[in-house]
Amino acid sequence: VKVKEPQPAEYGYFRPGLILFTYLHLAPQPELTDKLLAAKVNGVAYETIVEKDGSLPLLIPMSEVAGRMSVQVGAQYLQKTHGGRGILLGGVPGVAPGNLVILGGGIVGINAAKVAIGMGAHVTIIDRNLDRLRELDDIFNGQVVTLASNAWTIGENLKTADLVVGAVLIPGASTPKLVRREMVAGMRRGAVMVDVAIDQGGCFETSHATTHTEPTYVVDGVVHYCVSNMPAAVPHTSTLALTNATFPYLLELADHGLEGACTRHRGLRQGVDTYNGYVTHRGVAESQGRKWRELAEVE
Amino acid sequence: VKVKEPQPAEYGYFRPGLILFTYLHLAPQPELTDKLLAAKVNGVAYETIVEKDGSLPLLIPMSEVAGRMSVQVGAQYLQKTHGGRGILLGGVPGVAPGNLVILGGGIVGINAAKVAIGMGAHVTIIDRNLDRLRELDDIFNGQVVTLASNAWTIGENLKTADLVVGAVLIPGASTPKLVRREMVAGMRRGAVMVDVAIDQGGCFETSHATTHTEPTYVVDGVVHYCVSNMPAAVPHTSTLALTNATFPYLLELADHGLEGACTRHRGLRQGVDTYNGYVTHRGVAESQGRKWRELAEVE
Amino acid sequence: VKVKEPQPAEYGYFRPGLILFTYLHLAPQPELTDKLLAAKVNGVAYETIVEKDGSLPLLIPMSEVAGRMSVQVGAQYLQKTHGGRGILLGGVPGVAPGNLVILGGGIVGINAAKVAIGMGAHVTIIDRNLDRLRELDDIFNGQVVTLASNAWTIGENLKTADLVVGAVLIPGASTPKLVRREMVAGMRRGAVMVDVAIDQGGCFETSHATTHTEPTYVVDGVVHYCVSNMPAAVPHTSTLALTNATFPYLLELADHGLEGACTRHRGLRQGVDTYNGYVTHRGVAESQGRKWRELAEVE
Amino acid sequence: VKVKEPQPAEYGYFRPGLILFTYLHLAPQPELTDKLLAAKVNGVAYETIVEKDGSLPLLIPMSEVAGRMSVQVGAQYLQKTHGGRGILLGGVPGVAPGNLVILGGGIVGINAAKVAIGMGAHVTIIDRNLDRLRELDDIFNGQVVTLASNAWTIGENLKTADLVVGAVLIPGASTPKLVRREMVAGMRRGAVMVDVAIDQGGCFETSHATTHTEPTYVVDGVVHYCVSNMPAAVPHTSTLALTNATFPYLLELADHGLEGACTRHRGLRQGVDTYNGYVTHRGVAESQGRKWRELAEVE
Amino acid sequence: VKVKEPQPAEYGYFRPGLILFTYLHLAPQPELTDKLLAAKVNGVAYETIVEKDGSLPLLIPMSEVAGRMSVQVGAQYLQKTHGGRGILLGGVPGVAPGNLVILGGGIVGINAAKVAIGMGAHVTIIDRNLDRLRELDDIFNGQVVTLASNAWTIGENLKTADLVVGAVLIPGASTPKLVRREMVAGMRRGAVMVDVAIDQGGCFETSHATTHTEPTYVVDGVVHYCVSNMPAAVPHTSTLALTNATFPYLLELADHGLEGACTRHRGLRQGVDTYNGYVTHRGVAESQGRKWRELAEVE
Amino acid sequence: VKVKEPQPAEYGYFRPGLILFTYLHLAPQPELTDKLLAAKVNGVAYETIVEKDGSLPLLIPMSEVAGRMSVQVGAQYLQKTHGGRGILLGGVPGVAPGNLVILGGGIVGINAAKVAIGMGAHVTIIDRNLDRLRELDDIFNGQVVTLASNAWTIGENLKTADLVVGAVLIPGASTPKLVRREMVAGMRRGAVMVDVAIDQGGCFETSHATTHTEPTYVVDGVVHYCVSNMPAAVPHTSTLALTNATFPYLLELADHGLEGACTRHRGLRQGVDTYNGYVTHRGVAESQGRKWRELAEVE
Repeated sequence: VKVKEPQPAEYGYFRPGLILFTYLHLAPQPELTDKLLAAKVNGVAYETIVEKDGSLPLLIPMSEVAGRMSVQVGAQYLQKTHGGRGILLGGVPGVAPGNLVILGGGIVGINAAKVAIGMGAHVTIIDRNLDRLRELDDIFNGQVVTLASNAWTIGENLKTADLVVGAVLIPGASTPKLVRREMVAGMRRGAVMVDVAIDQGGCFETSHATTHTEPTYVVDGVVHYCVSNMPAAVPHTSTLALTNATFPYLLELADHGLEGACTRHRGLRQGVDTYNGYVTHRGVAESQGRKWRELAEVE
Repeated sequence: VKVKEPQPAEYGYFRPGLILFTYLHLAPQPELTDKLLAAKVNGVAYETIVEKDGSLPLLIPMSEVAGRMSVQVGAQYLQKTHGGRGILLGGVPGVAPGNLVILGGGIVGINAAKVAIGMGAHVTIIDRNLDRLRELDDIFNGQVVTLASNAWTIGENLKTADLVVGAVLIPGASTPKLVRREMVAGMRRGAVMVDVAIDQGGCFETSHATTHTEPTYVVDGVVHYCVSNMPAAVPHTSTLALTNATFPYLLELADHGLEGACTRHRGLRQGVDTYNGYVTHRGVAESQGRKWRELAEVE
Repeated sequence: VKVKEPQPAEYGYFRPGLILFTYLHLAPQPELTDKLLAAKVNGVAYETIVEKDGSLPLLIPMSEVAGRMSVQVGAQYLQKTHGGRGILLGGVPGVAPGNLVILGGGIVGINAAKVAIGMGAHVTIIDRNLDRLRELDDIFNGQVVTLASNAWTIGENLKTADLVVGAVLIPGASTPKLVRREMVAGMRRGAVMVDVAIDQGGCFETSHATTHTEPTYVVDGVVHYCVSNMPAAVPHTSTLALTNATFPYLLELADHGLEGACTRHRGLRQGVDTYNGYVTHRGVAESQGRKWRELAEVE
Repeated sequence: VKVKEPQPAEYGYFRPGLILFTYLHLAPQPELTDKLLAAKVNGVAYETIVEKDGSLPLLIPMSEVAGRMSVQVGAQYLQKTHGGRGILLGGVPGVAPGNLVILGGGIVGINAAKVAIGMGAHVTIIDRNLDRLRELDDIFNGQVVTLASNAWTIGENLKTADLVVGAVLIPGASTPKLVRREMVAGMRRGAVMVDVAIDQGGCFETSHATTHTEPTYVVDGVVHYCVSNMPAAVPHTSTLALTNATFPYLLELADHGLEGACTRHRGLRQGVDTYNGYVTHRGVAESQGRKWRELAEVE
Repeated sequence: VKVKEPQPAEYGYFRPGLILFTYLHLAPQPELTDKLLAAKVNGVAYETIVEKDGSLPLLIPMSEVAGRMSVQVGAQYLQKTHGGRGILLGGVPGVAPGNLVILGGGIVGINAAKVAIGMGAHVTIIDRNLDRLRELDDIFNGQVVTLASNAWTIGENLKTADLVVGAVLIPGASTPKLVRREMVAGMRRGAVMVDVAIDQGGCFETSHATTHTEPTYVVDGVVHYCVSNMPAAVPHTSTLALTNATFPYLLELADHGLEGACTRHRGLRQGVDTYNGYVTHRGVAESQGRKWRELAEVE
Repeated sequence: VKVKEPQPAEYGYFRPGLILFTYLHLAPQPELTDKLLAAKVNGVAYETIVEKDGSLPLLIPMSEVAGRMSVQVGAQYLQKTHGGRGILLGGVPGVAPGNLVILGGGIVGINAAKVAIGMGAHVTIIDRNLDRLRELDDIFNGQVVTLASNAWTIGENLKTADLVVGAVLIPGASTPKLVRREMVAGMRRGAVMVDVAIDQGGCFETSHATTHTEPTYVVDGVVHYCVSNMPAAVPHTSTLALTNATFPYLLELADHGLEGACTRHRGLRQGVDTYNGYVTHRGVAESQGRKWRELAEVE
């Protein structure tokens, strides 16, 4: 029996039954979690919505933006004036283009590749999924080199790379450190590395998160760009992209309420992290040592 | 009769008969001209070599580099973090790409277009030469909009442009101010303009030269990038590109001497600005109010 | 116990056990249904065959033909001589191309886009399925603008459209009226709208079915082409396309009889609308208020 | 000595010194010529302006429009509903595309090819200029079949053609009849022929000019579309295209007067058909049996 | 109870528990099977590993290599000097390209098509799967003709073919003889047929396996290239391609042992042909008349 | 005064006034020259016809054929079974393609590049003409690397090349030996070199002419293919290509006789090597130490 509803003075806009639909990232934020639970806010987190095929529909748009941006910022930092090798990624007639190595051929990787091919770079995509490489070969029809991933292949290709894009994101797992410190040491001075996976820990051993204000640092002569939340730099595009993806869920919530929407749409169900004072997402519960309740139980 | 040769102490490395083969840009530098004349240095200026078809073979490589760079830097400054509209030039699936307007379809323009199409932008090239637009239509096969140039067309297209590249260079003439101040005022806030013609005065009324250190300024909410000598930012690529072009002339000079090379190669002849104490380039002479002597007379 | 078999005189070519394999469209035709039931014809309807993935294999070829035709007829009616704006869809060098807006990125939409891109039009595809937009972006690699669908986006894009193709078909449901009357009123005079969805009610509020003899009418100055059964205009191509799709089913029927074929191929099973005097398709039964019997029961 | 100037009542808007800058087509119009001469109108004919390289700059835009339109109207008349074979030019997956044969690889031909390739047709261009075929091979990179022209090759290719575009225009000469009557007889019933050269007599022996009102007729079962002035069907596009081309000449005339403009621009000089009461174009003079005076003499 | 382990002298390197991971092709080799059983070698055959979607992951890379090679060797044997028609597959400007017919649009077929389109050939792919033809149309965007397969279509297209690639492989079934002897008789003299399906019996009635030493023979004037194991000709590429595919399985085996790996990866489980003295693959057992034991029973 | 006409018995088919229009290659054949002079045959040599722009119109078709063939035969000899590295030129998904270096970007080079790009190779074109590299960049739009030619660049690129095509032909001059013996020594074992310039001496120091029967030999582990008259291997294509080019000249000769044709067509004039008993081609005369008479003198 609920004896006392939390008061506005205490929780600001939070109130029981409020549906909070946004990026929550609760795992590392126990205080925020406390408040959501106390105020019995139903927190639906963009980042934990999972579709039937295992895809994360509200992360994809951000990966698309970041993937395309990665080559653009990479090209920028290759300028001598920004600390790079002084290379024009696409070369010009008579001068060879720069070498771009993309680690990971998923959403980030394919979007990086599209921009890079367009700019005239020599593009190599390394991925361990051969079926995906076949798809990329169909899509790019011989305009990229696709290579099966292993440590040796990555190492060899880094030696002659001008730009490296780290595009390996494994949903629900920490990113593997595909590029070891010693590989960085063997790279060309003034080469640039862009770690798009930085929000999940990064895929270069030498990566640590930076900001749009101070976006780069240098390790062994190699420029590192590891800005968290890259899409924030292009808010006009990012907002449209994100809204395109969130709007259909929003409509469901508005038309059918949280419970109705969750019945109609299983993916949304997995996005419910807190419900009526309970933690209903297993991952959040585990990471904070709280009790997890299945949504069905407490609904 | 020469009575006294200039001494090293006086002129440093300059000495009679020395062939100085480089960019000279003498017109605005009377003091340098004085020294070359006094020291009887034979100054062969990259920028005044003209081929039979009227092209400037040692400026083309720099135009290629600058053209490709222009879109890259434009994309950078469109980022909110750099003062722009916060637009990703190529958009993403579900979000429209940005609009790029290129003024001038010559070397700079075609190279800008190649990069921009590759990045996924919506590209419009405006040029007054219909035959060139036909060539571009053949080369890009429907992937760019080509428009015949006139003030109205430029004005209309600027209203919805996200990025404008000024790529109008008229050899041997000051660049026309195609974009008037009031057109800039009618543009989107946060749009970006890159004036590649800045080395010859610029083709926007609101342009003034900037540097790689302080590359941009804002007029009426529109970011202006007007860096002189853009290729300096990518010296690795630029040096190779320039050397590709200068090397054949250098071989001629080395194998046949200045006089022999000039006989064999008429284009080189026009590059001789100073010879044995005389100004032998009409433009340099006129701009400094000096007497001009035809090379043939004084050879 | 069957006491009397229907006689040829009564039912013409119909007879018990006859397999009638063609488009039936029984729902709106109770008399035809009566006759099939009375004559115990086993009616297998092209349009109700459904494959495991929910696709309608014998409607797809017609959608492909109609999709490609839609741009062709749209281009035709854009001619001033046919009532349109007098626009050449692809423009020419120096003149901008026309704007084509395709509502729906499915089979009809992608086929319309292929032809339109080829003709040089500026193509925008609007669809609410982001994953499909991603696929289209991969396939067309930046040559179309893809936009997430909502009423505002449709409205804005219609204002500057020269040609609109309505390509939204929802299997088993009436087509949503995506384009409202007031949107049509805001369009350019002489613009053309082709409603490929007209066979299922059309996706413009202003659509009503027309014929190949009288194909168009004008609403608010906008030319409407809403011909039912567009593929009939190119019977040579359409027949081959349809036969390609029906032939494998026909072979099954010929080799294994109706019952055998239905066992081997579940999709075919759903195509059986009438069997041995019973209505075996739920939709047909419901629309005519008849009793529905599951095929398995009466087989 | 001029004793009497022509009066407005007599010649309407014509008056001495008036510059009439438009398509004139005087050769077959002696009465119009009489009036221009009597009124001493200086008639500058779009169609007789010739650039240094022999091109006709004010006919090219119309050829571009007609070339692109030719495939569009050809596709329309291939519909059974318009009398054709009932073929969709691009086919669909599983059904072969139609065969398009283009006679002549000039401006009309390349523009026809661009549209046809885009629509998915199987395109063959026949031209007698091998260098032009090489250019087309570079531009279309293997997407068209190029064939050297001779009667046998034309005949063989017509036998399997669905659509034939006659695109042979020889400036200043009557068009050769490349397609003989008996070749037409050997074609497929319902094939379509579009004779873009009809304004200069046509390149099919069976061609005679038709109108936008009654555009086609049938010979030996083959639909003929031989509309004079095809671009009139898309006046919006055609006017822009033509104005793009005429405007620079107009500026010259406005800034420098007829005499000044003719001095500055030799091509324009050839466009002066009548000047101060004299016929100054040799072709016009010869075709009407009048005396020809060189412009320089009478200026 | 095992009383005596087999001795090295008897079985060479074979020993109980040894994991033999390679192509085994046991069905036709009872002696080898005997030895594996006697020595209790656990034989894991590349060719019997099957993924969830029914694909054969360790055969795909070889199909890719063979598919690309097929056009290359076809082009070679079309040379007069190698017995062919003396045709250059891609033609040259002014001369039509050769006709290539690919039977089957799977892995072999798409890879053959990529190379052939690239070489400039006129490519027709015939497949009975319309959905696959749609995919190919998306991928090649109008650069191939796709045709639905049936005997008549194959026959008609063979009559004008210069090169035919047999690319029909049905996993776990003998290849259908799509090309009958009489079709071969109706082909052009000097045409070339490459039967990539030869390892599974071939898809031409006139095929019999040949070797890299004696790769071709002639039937009815048509050159047949039916080399078993085509990828052996390019071992550098083939080894890398195969290792890319086998390596992840190898890692599983190394990290988890055979039993562990089989638990984690169901596809691998199906690859176990012999285990601890038992035949554990149904197909191998049946083809040799041996008793089959399910792996789970004997593990 | 001519006293005696040569008799058939003496000269076979040769007779005074006979026009012999074919490849003659007289320079190294004094005996043939003797006979032509004695019989007063008017020898018009394909290979000495030169068009206004300096091109050799009857050699171009053979260069096109040889250029396209060069990659095809290169791919063949890269097979281990033919002595090469065992590389598939285009690689497969997951395996990098082979490196192709083309020396010379003229007719042979561009045709080689088209085929090689199509096959999926990594293509580098090295040429000393920057304007040509710009053209190639426009045509191939970033799909080839273009490099300015110099000894160092050639050397570096050869080190990692799998296939090298020698495509440098300088009209009227012996081919420069761009590839030195020591460069060959530094190449990969099993790499392949195809010297298309072999008919004019070859552009590799290690080249010597071979035949279609014995086409290759090995130097320093590198396979050399140096077959003279490569187009002979594809006579069907080559004959059509050559006839396309010779036919217009033949028509001129047939319609106007040799003298008339030479008046109308200056290029043909240069093809007349012998006329009425005189040597009328300076090069032939000089190479055999005979007296040269200008055609105009003796006509």
